[in-house]
Order: sequence, then C-alpha cells, then structure tokens
Amino acid sequence: MKPVYILNGPNLNLLGQREPGIYGADTLDDVARSCKTRAEALGMAADFRQTNLEGELVGWIQEARLRACGIIINAAAYAHTSVAIHDALKASDLPVVEVHLSNIYKREPFRHHSYVSATAHGVICGFGRHGYELALEALSRILTASAKE
Amino acid sequence: MKPVYILNGPNLNLLGQREPGIYGADTLDDVARSCKTRAEALGMAADFRQTNLEGELVGWIQEARLRACGIIINAAAYAHTSVAIHDALKASDLPVVEVHLSNIYKREPFRHHSYVSATAHGVICGFGRHGYELALEALSRILTASAKE
Amino acid sequence: MKPVYILNGPNLNLLGQREPGIYGADTLDDVARSCKTRAEALGMAADFRQTNLEGELVGWIQEARLRACGIIINAAAYAHTSVAIHDALKASDLPVVEVHLSNIYKREPFRHHSYVSATAHGVICGFGRHGYELALEALSRILTASAKE
Amino acid sequence: MKPVYILNGPNLNLLGQREPGIYGADTLDDVARSCKTRAEALGMAADFRQTNLEGELVGWIQEARLRACGIIINAAAYAHTSVAIHDALKASDLPVVEVHLSNIYKREPFRHHSYVSATAHGVICGFGRHGYELALEALSRILTASAKE
Amino acid sequence: MKPVYILNGPNLNLLGQREPGIYGADTLDDVARSCKTRAEALGMAADFRQTNLEGELVGWIQEARLRACGIIINAAAYAHTSVAIHDALKASDLPVVEVHLSNIYKREPFRHHSYVSATAHGVICGFGRHGYELALEALSRILTASAKE
Amino acid sequence: MKPVYILNGPNLNLLGQREPGIYGADTLDDVARSCKTRAEALGMAADFRQTNLEGELVGWIQEARLRACGIIINAAAYAHTSVAIHDALKASDLPVVEVHLSNIYKREPFRHHSYVSATAHGVICGFGRHGYELALEALSRILTASAKE
Amino acid sequence: MKPVYILNGPNLNLLGQREPGIYGADTLDDVARSCKTRAEALGMAADFRQTNLEGELVGWIQEARLRACGIIINAAAYAHTSVAIHDALKASDLPVVEVHLSNIYKREPFRHHSYVSATAHGVICGFGRHGYELALEALSRILTASAKE
Amino acid sequence: MKPVYILNGPNLNLLGQREPGIYGADTLDDVARSCKTRAEALGMAADFRQTNLEGELVGWIQEARLRACGIIINAAAYAHTSVAIHDALKASDLPVVEVHLSNIYKREPFRHHSYVSATAHGVICGFGRHGYELALEALSRILTASAKE
Amino acid sequence: MKPVYILNGPNLNLLGQREPGIYGADTLDDVARSCKTRAEALGMAADFRQTNLEGELVGWIQEARLRACGIIINAAAYAHTSVAIHDALKASDLPVVEVHLSNIYKREPFRHHSYVSATAHGVICGFGRHGYELALEALSRILTASAKE
Amino acid sequence: MKPVYILNGPNLNLLGQREPGIYGADTLDDVARSCKTRAEALGMAADFRQTNLEGELVGWIQEARLRACGIIINAAAYAHTSVAIHDALKASDLPVVEVHLSNIYKREPFRHHSYVSATAHGVICGFGRHGYELALEALSRILTASAKE
Amino acid sequence: MKPVYILNGPNLNLLGQREPGIYGADTLDDVARSCKTRAEALGMAADFRQTNLEGELVGWIQEARLRACGIIINAAAYAHTSVAIHDALKASDLPVVEVHLSNIYKREPFRHHSYVSATAHGVICGFGRHGYELALEALSRILTASAKE
Amino acid sequence: MKPVYILNGPNLNLLGQREPGIYGADTLDDVARSCKTRAEALGMAADFRQTNLEGELVGWIQEARLRACGIIINAAAYAHTSVAIHDALKASDLPVVEVHLSNIYKREPFRHHSYVSATAHGVICGFGRHGYELALEALSRILTASAKE
Repeated sequence: MKPVYILNGPNLNLLGQREPGIYGADTLDDVARSCKTRAEALGMAADFRQTNLEGELVGWIQEARLRACGIIINAAAYAHTSVAIHDALKASDLPVVEVHLSNIYKREPFRHHSYVSATAHGVICGFGRHGYELALEALSRILTASAKE
Repeated sequence: MKPVYILNGPNLNLLGQREPGIYGADTLDDVARSCKTRAEALGMAADFRQTNLEGELVGWIQEARLRACGIIINAAAYAHTSVAIHDALKASDLPVVEVHLSNIYKREPFRHHSYVSATAHGVICGFGRHGYELALEALSRILTASAKE
Repeated sequence: MKPVYILNGPNLNLLGQREPGIYGADTLDDVARSCKTRAEALGMAADFRQTNLEGELVGWIQEARLRACGIIINAAAYAHTSVAIHDALKASDLPVVEVHLSNIYKREPFRHHSYVSATAHGVICGFGRHGYELALEALSRILTASAKE
Repeated sequence: MKPVYILNGPNLNLLGQREPGIYGADTLDDVARSCKTRAEALGMAADFRQTNLEGELVGWIQEARLRACGIIINAAAYAHTSVAIHDALKASDLPVVEVHLSNIYKREPFRHHSYVSATAHGVICGFGRHGYELALEALSRILTASAKE
Repeated sequence: MKPVYILNGPNLNLLGQREPGIYGADTLDDVARSCKTRAEALGMAADFRQTNLEGELVGWIQEARLRACGIIINAAAYAHTSVAIHDALKASDLPVVEVHLSNIYKREPFRHHSYVSATAHGVICGFGRHGYELALEALSRILTASAKE
Repeated sequence: MKPVYILNGPNLNLLGQREPGIYGADTLDDVARSCKTRAEALGMAADFRQTNLEGELVGWIQEARLRACGIIINAAAYAHTSVAIHDALKASDLPVVEVHLSNIYKREPFRHHSYVSATAHGVICGFGRHGYELALEALSRILTASAKE
Repeated sequence: MKPVYILNGPNLNLLGQREPGIYGADTLDDVARSCKTRAEALGMAADFRQTNLEGELVGWIQEARLRACGIIINAAAYAHTSVAIHDALKASDLPVVEVHLSNIYKREPFRHHSYVSATAHGVICGFGRHGYELALEALSRILTASAKE
Repeated sequence: MKPVYILNGPNLNLLGQREPGIYGADTLDDVARSCKTRAEALGMAADFRQTNLEGELVGWIQEARLRACGIIINAAAYAHTSVAIHDALKASDLPVVEVHLSNIYKREPFRHHSYVSATAHGVICGFGRHGYELALEALSRILTASAKE
Repeated sequence: MKPVYILNGPNLNLLGQREPGIYGADTLDDVARSCKTRAEALGMAADFRQTNLEGELVGWIQEARLRACGIIINAAAYAHTSVAIHDALKASDLPVVEVHLSNIYKREPFRHHSYVSATAHGVICGFGRHGYELALEALSRILTASAKE
Repeated sequence: MKPVYILNGPNLNLLGQREPGIYGADTLDDVARSCKTRAEALGMAADFRQTNLEGELVGWIQEARLRACGIIINAAAYAHTSVAIHDALKASDLPVVEVHLSNIYKREPFRHHSYVSATAHGVICGFGRHGYELALEALSRILTASAKE
Repeated sequence: MKPVYILNGPNLNLLGQREPGIYGADTLDDVARSCKTRAEALGMAADFRQTNLEGELVGWIQEARLRACGIIINAAAYAHTSVAIHDALKASDLPVVEVHLSNIYKREPFRHHSYVSATAHGVICGFGRHGYELALEALSRILTASAKE
Repeated sequence: MKPVYILNGPNLNLLGQREPGIYGADTLDDVARSCKTRAEALGMAADFRQTNLEGELVGWIQEARLRACGIIINAAAYAHTSVAIHDALKASDLPVVEVHLSNIYKREPFRHHSYVSATAHGVICGFGRHGYELALEALSRILTASAKE
C-alpha cells in the first residue's frame, strides 16, 4: 500500500528551538516519530520530509501524485505566499489535509490566508504536534470512505 | 468530573437534509451519538446542544464557564458575524475547539473569517461529522496537558 | 394547499409609527390584511408573522420548508447582517421573494447589501405596502410555472 | 393621457436567444406585447423601445420628461456604468421603476451596483418578463397615489 | 414621571468576573445600584436591565418609546454588529446616550465602529462603572434643556 | 484663425430646467451666446456644441485636432466614466480646459474623479455659466503664451 | 464561408498619428490591409471595421452572431469600461480573440482590467499591428480544432 | 496641587458664532467659566487655553507633563490629523480625557477617527459645553482612584 | 468696502525658484502685483499674504470673517491635509475660491483630494499665476450676484 | 546566432496530466517539439527548459542575458508572486514575451496580476500550446525590427 | 563651508524622558553633542535644531536651501502627515537623509509611511542616537561623490 | 569570535551591470571587499554570500543562528514577498540589520513593504554600496551595547 506523504515547509527543522511559546518544545524528529507510530496504528505508512525550498515541496507533491495515498502538509510560511504549491496540490488529485502547529487565525493578518486551504479536504490548526496525529486519523477516514464508494 | 459542552449554532438541526453535497448525510442526532461514544472512550462526558438563537449560545457559553471542562463549538453562521459569541468564549477561560463540518476556506468569502477562531485553542474544519471526534481527542489532550502543569 | 409564509423582521411591528417619511403610514396589521386579501384573490393562503429575534426568523424559515409553498421575506435590518437567515433560506428549497418597504439602494451604504438577495428568486423594494402584493403576484406566477414543469 | 415609457438597454433585443438559462425564452416582442396588454388593463398606454446606444437612452429619458407619465427602465449593462442615464433620470422629475430580468444580486459583483437604483422609486428584479408587468402595476399605484395628493 | 431605561447587552452579566483588566472589578449589580442612587439624586428613576438576546434589546427599546423618558445603552458586542438595534433606537424618538465601560477606540479594530453612535445624542466610553453615572447626568441635562424649549 | 471648440456632454441641453439649485437658471443657448460674446472680445471664434453620445464627443475631439486651436470641454457625466474621451483628448495635442458648472468636489463621491482632468491644462468648476467665460480667458492666455515660445 | 469580424473601438481611426511612441506608425488602413492578406493566407475572409460608438460596437457584435465565424476585437478604451460589450460578446457564442496594440499591463492602472478578457478565448497584447495577424492565426487554429470535434 | 490643563484646538475660539446648529450658542469664555466653577466644586484648579497652532498644543501638553495633574483635550480638527499631538499625549504619562462638543460619529467620515482617542483614558462627545464638566468629573474620579492605589 | 483676502500656504514664498517646470517662473511678488492690478480693475481691494504655518492660515481666515468680502485661497500642501483650514473656511460664511498653480489632478494621488474644495464656491487649477486673476473675476461675479439678491 | 530561451515555471512538467480541461492534453515534450519546429521555420534556435524552482528561473534569465537573443517565459504560478523574476527579466535587457496556456483573466482573481507582464514586450494567453508558436512568431518580428533599426 | 542642517520635529525635545523603551535614554542634547563631534571628525559643521511647529520646520528647510550643504531630518510625527515638509524638501535641491530613532516599520501602521522618504537620498531608522552619526557619514560620502562629478 | 553574516538575495550577483542608474556601478565583489575592509577595521569578520534561491537564504539564516554574531541582509526582491525569510530571521535570535542599495520608498509601491523590516533592529536604504558599511558600523555598536548589558 502507498504511504502518506507528510510534507513540512521552511523553518520547521528548527522546531523545539524557534519561539517555543508559539510552536512548542517538541523537535521535528519527535513529530516524525509520533506520526510514524500513529500511522502504523492506523494501518498506514508515513513518509515524513522537510525542506526550506518552495520548489522542492512542489516536486515532492508531484511525486506524491504517483507514489502516495494522500498528503498531509504543513507548508509553514509558504502556505501564505505560494501559488505554486497550490497548483501542485490541486494537480495531485489526492486527498490533502492541511496542518499548522499554531492557530494561524490568532497571529499576524498575513498568516490568516493560506493558498493551501482551498485545495485541502480539511484544515487542522493550533494543536501543535498532536495536529499531525489528528490529520492522520482524518486522512485514514477519508481513504476508508472513498474506498467504500 | 465536568462534561465537555458541544455547542451547535443555527441550521445545524437541519443536518442530513440541508445541502448534503456540502454538509453530508448524517443527522445532528447521528453526530451527537458518535460524540458521546467517542467522549466516553476518552473518559469524558459530552453535553451536546443546538440552538438557532445567538443569545442562547452566549448563555450556554457563560454556563460552561462554571459547569464544563471545555467547549467544542460549531457556531455555524454566527461564527462569521457574532462578536457576542467571541466575547463570551474569551470570558469563559476554558479551552475552546472550533469545528466546522465543511472547509469554510473553500466557500464564499464571507465564510473565510470566523470571530470564534481568535478565541479558540485550535480549529478543525472540513471533515464532516468526524471533525467533532477529532475535536474531542484534541480537547482531551489539552486537558491532560494542562492537568500535568 | 400549503400557505405562503410572509415573514417580517425587527422593528416592522412599529410600522406606521416609525419614520413615516421613509416607511409610510400603514401599520403592519394593514399590510397583513391587504396581503391576505391579495393572496385569496390569487388562490393562496398567507401566514403572516413578525419577530424581532433573528433566531426565531431562522426557525420559521425551517418550519416553512415543510409547511409552506413559498416564502416572502422582509428581513429588515437582519437582511444586512444575518448569514444565519441566508443559510436557512438556502436550505429551505422553496421559492423566496425578498421585499423591502423602502428603496434600500437610496439609503445608507450599509443597507445596500442584503444576505437575503443571493438566496431569493427576485427582489422587490421601494413600493411600501404594495410591494408585498407584488411579491404575492410574483410568487403565484413562479409556483404556477414550476407546477407546469 | 401621457403614456408610460418602457425603455430597454443594450442587448435586450437578443432576448430569447442570449443565455436563456439566465434571461428566459421570451423575446423582446413578447415582452412588449404583454406590457401593452397589462398597461391597457391598468388604463395606461405603453411606449416600448430598445436601443444599444447609451446616448439614445439619455435622449428618450429627456423626451419622457415632456411626453410621458412615468418611466420603466431596464438599462441592462448601462445600469452598472452610466452616470449619464442616472443624471437624465434624476432630471426627468418622473416616477421611475427599475426592472431587471435576472436577479442581479446573484451574479458577478460588477452587476450588484446600479446607477439607476438611486434615482428610482423602486426596484424589481429576478422575475423575468413578469417583472415588467409588476412594474406597470407598481407605477399605476404611484401615479394614482400622487394624483390623490 | 417616566423612568430612564438603562439597557445592557450581551456578557455584561459577567461583569466583575470577565477580563477585570479591561472591564473592572464591579459587578452589574454594583453598576445598577450606583445608577439608581445617582438617578434619584438627579430626580429621575432608573429601569436597569440586561440581556444576551439582540431581539430582546430591540423589544425593550420599542417599549421605551412609550414608557421611558430616555435611554442609556451599553449594547456591548451588539453595538458593533446590530443594524436592528440602530433601527430601534432611531425609531424611539428619545434622547439616547451610548456608554461603553472600556475605551473601545483602544481595542481591536472591529470595536471601533458602533451602529449605536450614529443614533445617539452623545457617547461616553472608557470610564468603567462611572460612565453610567456621567450618562445619567448628561441625560438629565438634555431632558431639562428640551423641557425648557 | 481656427476656432475654439466648446464641447458639452450629456444632459447639458436640459440646462435651466434640470435641478436649477445645482446648475443655475441659464439655458445652454444663454451659455453659447455669452461664450460667443466673450470669445469675440478675446479675438477668438467659438464653435459651441452639445451631444448626449459619448462617441460623438470622441468624434468632435478628433475633428478638433485638425480644425480647432483649443478645446473647452464640459463632458458632464462622461467626465467620470469615459476613458474614450480621455484618449481622444490626449491624442488631440491641443490645449484643453475642463469646465464644470457645479463644484463636483462638493457632490457624490463618484463625481470627484474626472478622466478629463488628467488630460487638461487646467480645471475650472463651480462658477456656473461664468466658468465658460473664465475658460475662454484662460485658453486665450495659454494660446498667447505658446505663440510667444 | 463566413468572414471573421475584426472590430476596432474608439480613437483607433487615429492610428499612426496619435502617440506613435505607444501605438506605432502604422495607420488603421495599413492594419486592415495586412489583416486581409493574412486572413487570405489562412483561407479566411476578414470584415474590418472601426467606430467610436460603444453602441455600434454592440450592434456589430450582435450582427456577428449570425454572419461571422469568429470575432477579433480591439475595443480600445471601451475594453476598460463597457459591460455592454462584455454582454454582447458573451451572447455571441463565437470564439473571440482580444487584441491590444500596446501592452496594457505596462500602462495606467485603469487599463489593466478589460471587460473583454473574461469573454475571450485568449488575449494578445503589446505587439502592435502584428498582434492582429497573430490573432488571425490563433482564431484559425481554434476554428480548425472545433471543426474537428 | 497641580491644575488640570483644559486644552482646546483650532477654531474653538469661534464658539457661539460658528455653525451654532452643530456646536451650540455658548462662547468659549462661557465654557471656560463653567469649567472653572465645576473644577472648584470638585476641589481642582483648571488652566483653560485655546490655540490654532498644532505645535503650540504639542508644547502645552509637554508643559502639562510637569505642571498638571491631568489633561482634558478637545483637539478639534487636529484630533483627526495630528500624530504629533498623539505622541505628546502618550509621552505625558498623565490621565487624558478627550472631549468633543458634537457627536463626531454622526458627522463626515473623516471625523470618525481621532488620533487622540487611542491615548485617552476615555472619550466624551456630543454633549456640547456640558461635556467639559462631565470630563472634569471623570478626571476627578480617575485621580482619586489612582491616589488610593 | 472690505478687501478680498488672498491667502497663500506653505512654500509658495519660494515661487519662481522651486520646480519652475511645475509652478512657473513668476515670483510670489509678481503674483501679488498682478492680483492687485486685476482687483483694482474689478473695483476691489486685495489683501495678499503668505505663511508656512497652518495655524496662522486658520487665524487669517477667522480674521477674514469680520474684515473681508471674500477669500481666495491657495492652501498648497495644507489643502491636502488640513481639516483645521476646512473648518475655518466653513465657519467664515464668506464666498471662497480655491486656486492651485498646477493641475493637481495630474500629479501624485495624495494631491488629488483637497479639504478646501468642499468648502469652496468653485475651484480653479492649472493656470499658474493667471489662476489668481480668474479667481478674482469669479469672486467679483459672485459678490455682484449675491448683492443683487 | 544566439537561441531563444523558452523558460517554463512550476508544475508545467505535469502538462497533459494536470487539469486537462484547463491546460489541454499536450505534454510539455509536445510543446517543446512544436516550439523547436516553429523556431527552425523562423530561422531561430530554441532552448526549452522547465523548473519548479523560482531561483533557478532567475538564474536562467540571468544566463539568457549573455547567451540568448530573447526570452519566452511561461512563469506559471511564479508570474503572480515573484518580484525576483520580475527583477531578473528587467535586468536582462532582452525582448521578453509572456505566455500562459490558459486565459488567466478568466480564472481566480489572484491569477489576474502578473509581475512578468510589466517587464514584457507583449503578452499572449489562452491559446494553449499554440501560444508558444505565436510567441515565437512575435519574437521573430521584434528581433527583425530591432535589427533594422 | 556651509553646515549640515540637522532638523528635528515634534516631541524630540522630550528625548530621554518619553518612552525610553522605544526611544532610548539619551537626551536631545546628547544627540546634538555626538552629532557635532562626528560632523567635525568628518570635516563638516552641524547646525542642530528642534521645533514642535510644522511651519517652522518648513521655514528651516527653506533656509537650508541657501545656507546648508545638506539636510538630515528626523521629522518625527510630521514625517507621517506633512505634505508641506515633503514639498519644502523637494524644493531644497539638497541631499536629504531621513533618520528615525526607532524602527518605524515595527510600530503602528500609521508610522509605516513617511512623506519624507520619497524626497530623501536614503533612510536610516532603528539605531537610536547612533542613526544621526550614520546619517552624517552617509551625507559626507554623498557630498564627496557629488563634488567629484 | 563569530563572524557577521552578510546575506544577499536574488539578482544582486548582477550588480554593476543591472540598471546602474538605480543600483550604481560597483560589482558585488567590490561590495564584498569594502565590507571585509570595514569589518576588519571594526574588529569583526564578515562572511559575505549571495544566492538567487529563497530557501538557501532561509538555510543560511538558520546556520547564522549557531555560527554568526549578527546578520546584515539585503534580501532584494524576497524582502517584499518572503514570509519564510521573515520567519527564519525572527527565529535567529540575532541582531539583524536590513540594507537596500536603492531607496525603496521612492520606487514602485510593491517595493515599499518589506517582510524583513519587522524582524530587523534597523533599516538602511538608498546609500548604495556604502549602506553595507554603515550597517557594519551599526551592528558593531549594537553588539558592543548588548555586550555591556
């Protein structure tokens, strides 16, 4: 069975160091580990990646079209500025779940709009590391439901 | 132990009948039932209510301040227009999780802004009935984490 | 045969007293009476109501889904602020005619937009009490036309 | 007695051919005929015209100042762009009823504003050909009422 | 002699508990008491009420038209969103004084505009409980002045 | 010597009849006469015209390129909406003086912007019929000055 | 076989004289000639026209509905202001190619939006006279492709 | 004990002459006198001044930092345009009460925003001369309360 | 007879030196001289002044209320920013003519709006020094006309 | 002779797979092939590339400065967001032709503005693969014309 | 040799007392002293002044035209509101360096725009007192460079 | 001791070639050399880099967190569009000085806002190559000052 691609955007490699008041104390490795555990519990495999390059995110999403069953994406800063990622996700024809660690609607106005949201099945934000686990559970349900149809 | 208040706003009583393409085929009773089951599994009680009256939602949130351990709220249309609900949630001093059945960021522009979001711990939208269960799981974690502190 | 629901929003109970320069000298009872007369002439029954509560209007529209053949609505101030009424009307699956006593496009800018308009079959405004009669005639035609289909 | 001028703007000569899903299957001749019938029933005469030229509409409105008892106008596209027609209507000192075949508030944002509305006694839109008949009835009442004063 | 209606909007029943940094430590009962004392000192009676329902505020303002000599209103959140209250106040033909506990011009932008202000004789904000007393004094002067005319 | 073209836009033929409170009691013939007198006094000839058609104004401006020494234009409503007239004036390579009878900056916001202004040497507004005479004097000076260069 | 209508808006008759820095040195006759030559080379006939009247353009587009195989339109200034031309093009049910001599996206902001674009198959701008030839080639392909379907 | 500085901005020296329909019939001397009387009754001294110069107002506010116990300011037109006064008030570290004779929220939109409001403890507007007395009472309370702390 | 006050705002003392491409080569003394000559020719006296201080302009306008028959004002930069001058002019109850040397509608957007325009009888801009003479002629007519009434 | 650089932005490698309703059924290789054929027919060489990386596009444009005779660019999503590409194109001092497969003016508002357009000689959009061929023809003419100068 | 004028706007005389968290602990005399020292080290003389009056700043800038070699200006609050200072600086034909003590782009939105910036050679902000020294060094280089040309 | 990272964004490698009227004649190597000289004079080391890739800039800023004492950044085009760089700078916990070669406030509106500014200690723009030296001096002072605390 194809894995879930869990794609992370710029600066998320700093997790646990950068502004812990906003983003929490867990590192990205902690997040990756808890994602893998939860994915297994749900009978799925997780391919967890991070990059600071907008174009590399675009490439991974294109790769997912062929090799993944779904995408969980925390595009971080690029969520607010990237039409390229929006286009790649729309072209992927996969179920997409958008995740943000912090509640972006409580922060600066330029973080209130995400180009990812309009291409996603749903959005989960504000629950820190746990948001990824909720996203896996949500994606699992979506895949089960569409398998039944 | 105090229950979770799961509060639902206007027209959600029509669930299953109104625009099933957007909101799904489950009725509000189906949602209430699956919430109760999930809450129990998480060791919590759920007090599930719906109203079409903005002021009654305000009253229930005020009541929650004293009688609930947290609030899950799908304010529906009032999410986009009600400063009164915003104020009540802010005054509640409880963890709040905002839920929407549909992905509001894919719909009309007037649904892209929610006065609830800025008062919530986190937001979950687009996953239909399942969103409530994810919200319960999220709230359970928040309560456990704050209990530890 | 099911009646037409003729629903009136806040402050319309003051009709005839409030700013007669704008709204005319007829009372709401006068309007109700002329509506009933005209409805009968058109072979329809009219259920005429008024409330100051947004949520009660939402409830009546939901009730109309099951018990009425169509809705004539003068949502007054709520036309400009209520997404909840917009949602209820959209969910009703009934022909809706929007009425305003005054020509709202001649008044303050915040009265130029109505959340009701986008859910209505058509709009009639500026003809005072007579607008309700025109709305009844319009609704009668719509019902006749859809009965033929 | 002076006739009612019923003035129609650009592209309305295509009625019945152009986008029937929006504008209906009746031709402009059908509309003219039903207007004349209704006008007669109301004891009025109707002078029904169409032009694609903004300046010709302005000229007809100026002519109406002297020769008509009132104006029913469907300025079509010019409703949204013409200050010249707005000025002519304001200068006419006649009762004006604005008509649109479709519900312009359900369409593109650039059709939501009409320069005609602020000069009209009232507005009727969304009822197709029937809207003209309602406009005649409305105008008949306005003329009767002002005759009484 | 008719009393002054002192009308309070949503969440003001939480006064003294909710965000004391912004709203102060007095309860609404404290405010009511000091209002009554001051009113008596000014030779007036005060009818002090609170509700979370927009429509009930509308109803009380309509009632005031017949039974009160003036209105002091702290519409709280509804000041920023309610055209219905604006319309009711305008229809009341009574002197209106708007009060806010906090200085709304120092807070979030959505609190900077009040639909009440344009219907009020004057506005007093930022002085906490004392603002109501100042409003009573202001209203007393307005009534005295208009009695002299 | 080539004449000055004095071009007048829509509804100016109604001058003296239309809203005399705004536009004054003089007719367009009065204006034409006083223009001719003043032009003669300044040693110039005046070709005075009016049309309700935007395209005809464009044509006259094109004609002026070859046959006139300068343009005085009161484009009336088209000043606010016509890019075509803006383009024609810019292409004319003639000195242009814009005139308005009323002070457009005191009127509705949609009259505050004129596409003519950015193509004109100068603007004169608010002085009624006399504004045309001032424009002739201004144009006379401009022509004298450029003749000297 | 039906000809292509090549329709030109206001001031294009000045081509070669007006602001050659922006629009080039060719006259409209030069453009017409090169269009005819290119059309013939592509096996098509070209009906090339120009007018300063918005309503005449509307009329020609309506005529094209019945008599042309496609429309190439340089609406010039009317591209930015005419909803009437937008409506006529939409009603024509013909393939439309929009042409501008200059690159309108490099000029004043009011030239950046064209009501024609949303009704066109495609847009070509900035290539001067040559743009019309490219448009003919593009239209030829579109017609060939749709003939094959 | 230090006096209260009561500072008045441009054109307030015209009080009683300028637009009495808006500003009332009292002169600025009348206002000064009633302020002094009220201040004395409250056990305070009042230093009452007026200037048309923005920079002089800035200077007086700076002087107040050292010599006054609080500031009551009616900055008049400068309230809407002066960041310099805003900065001086913020730097003063004194309690500030903003006063306006008229209800600025009922007037032109450019009067709805005041740079003073965001630096003030509270705002009083619409009560004419009496507003200054209310401001003195409010300031007296603020000083008493902060003396207690 | 009272003189005309001709008031000039900031930087106009630099005339003839500052940006002659925009403002021309005449000095302010040249302007004053030609104003005096023209005023005399029209049977009026001219009191010509310049200041860089907003508040001094306000003071001169207040002085004009009592000592002048009318005001010609070139407020220069303050035209775009000063509500205080707007208020003083409105309070003056004198006929006001606004003058600008350059055509402000051809320059930066922040120069397109003038707070003076809404208080003026009329506006003259773009004619350099000659604009003052036209303003004197205009004012002379206004005074003559109002003397006749 | 230097080749034309034909540069393609993010997601264009998906051509033929991604949303064929919008972008057509041809693959990018098909486009490259037809470009090469057309270029040869026009006596030019084509260097055809695609990348998902904004910075790589910038690099290729810089390379083109030295090695290419002109640039045809379909920046795809980056057209709407990249000032860096705008700057690189402006610095290239080469003729630039912008191409889009779809008519971007018919799509979401965020696709209506392109940072590329203001740096391009001209724009061609909406003609699918054929647009590149038209661009080559246009570029060929531009190069020929500038060679003649 | 002519001195550098170092001009300071409103409230800068409070330096060291006013909001030291934002503006630092140095007084304006400290700044003047370090400016003089640095200027001497760079072989320049510094004329250091402060005023709260917009018009006095305008006058000093006009004086600088004739007596200074360059201007360093911290217009403080007037940077954000004064077109008059903008005009004076533009007319000065001197190199201008804008300084702000604080980083204005981190503060309230109304401080993000400065009318001074568009007239300045360059901008230095956020470095407190040291910013003036950097400005002197920058100005020294500019003067040296232009002396070489 | 750790070096200063001097980071340069897209197209700065073209310095000296690209638009010398705006950016000057120095190459980036010239800038690097003068930076190193100045840094040494201030007792600091400089690590000078340039890239066209947004993600690489993000990576270098993250690297700086651990290896540099401060950051001088000229993000060029990315200053206006990159939230990712904003986030990286904010996470760096280092003093940041923003530099621009040209005065961005004199250029196109889309260059007036920089996402870097809100994360920087201060901003220096408009002084060409010299701006980097001023930035080094500023950074040196900041480091000295914070070392003293």
